[in-house]
Amino acid sequence: MYQKFDLKEKLRFYVITDRRMSDEVKSVRLAIGGGATTIQLRIKDASTREIISVGMKIRKITRDFNVLFIVDDRVDVALAVEADGVHVGQDDMPLKMVKRIAPNLIVGVSASNLKEALKAEEEGADYIGAGSIYPTVTKKDAKILGLASLRTINDAVKIPVVAIGGVNHQNVVKVLKSGIDGIAAVSAIVGASNIRESASRMRTLIDNYFRETR
Amino acid sequence: MYQKFDLKEKLRFYVITDRRMSDEVKSVRLAIGGGATTIQLRIKDASTREIISVGMKIRKITRDFNVLFIVDDRVDVALAVEADGVHVGQDDMPLKMVKRIAPNLIVGVSASNLKEALKAEEEGADYIGAGSIYPTVTKKDAKILGLASLRTINDAVKIPVVAIGGVNHQNVVKVLKSGIDGIAAVSAIVGASNIRESASRMRTLIDNYFRETR
Repeated sequence: MYQKFDLKEKLRFYVITDRRMSDEVKSVRLAIGGGATTIQLRIKDASTREIISVGMKIRKITRDFNVLFIVDDRVDVALAVEADGVHVGQDDMPLKMVKRIAPNLIVGVSASNLKEALKAEEEGADYIGAGSIYPTVTKKDAKILGLASLRTINDAVKIPVVAIGGVNHQNVVKVLKSGIDGIAAVSAIVGASNIRESASRMRTLIDNYFRETR
Repeated sequence: MYQKFDLKEKLRFYVITDRRMSDEVKSVRLAIGGGATTIQLRIKDASTREIISVGMKIRKITRDFNVLFIVDDRVDVALAVEADGVHVGQDDMPLKMVKRIAPNLIVGVSASNLKEALKAEEEGADYIGAGSIYPTVTKKDAKILGLASLRTINDAVKIPVVAIGGVNHQNVVKVLKSGIDGIAAVSAIVGASNIRESASRMRTLIDNYFRETR
């Protein structure tokens, strides 16, 4: 997989599913229609068979549209549906284990501080999901990282950094100014009444920023 | 692994954890002390990291005592903690996917009827968990298989069959008379006030049955 694309490019606009806001398959289709470059499937509280069933549908759509497909937490599901990668938080499988049992997956790691980010890079993470940048309705207990720390993390690691947590159309340019490679969003996209339009506006903001600055 | 032991022998007395009844690590230690030959770790509603942490402790104990170690549902956890196998129900990962992503794991499959059992054998299952034999407090919505159907399944497949669901000290001999290779228990063992003593009595009943009949 790695040879086929530039990971940084793919991580520019990273959309995460949330069934409390919208059906996964439907929201993925609309988000990709609006310009999402990476999709993360995040489902808790469903049977493995159901997660796999949804994952297979998303694998098909993402492959058809050349979008990166990452599965949250579940390495077994990522392998079963042939996702491109898996994203692990600090409560998920330790990175070293992921690398051992799934050496061919792209692995993203959540970091809420510099120490976690440096450890993840050292252990072989392919990218960092840094956050929460702002308070977010999706994870009410999330630690707030803030933009200054986001910049510190981004300056400290060589692997791509995606900012997550409370990023929306209003603040996305400010977040991108910290020098990161992409932004991840849940509610700003899959919680929107018009998911495709919301994704399209976000993609335009991101593209305009990168066109003007890099 | 396969070459190192007789799977049928190992499946004779199969104890499944349940944190609603007793701490997993503690109950595993006591059940093995009482004679369990297989341990299945079954945890829902915990983070992957927590399941792995418990699983690593159980891997150590089961290895020390030469007991088979099976993880319920989670193929990723089974691979990460180097369990001997994984057990999948009809709501878990489809067997063919399990065999593809984890070709070296022993795979058990739940069957509540003959059709499911035959399909599992055909697709490469290593053993069948047939049940529920009786109504059980652990899975209130479980389909009841009954002893006649258990015998039908056991006669129809070549792979080992373990009976599960409501098996206790009172009915275990009756269940074994259907010709199966082992019994699995949750509440009769890990729900007992004295887990070690309960396991020891069960093991004696099983051993006596096999000594007298086979």
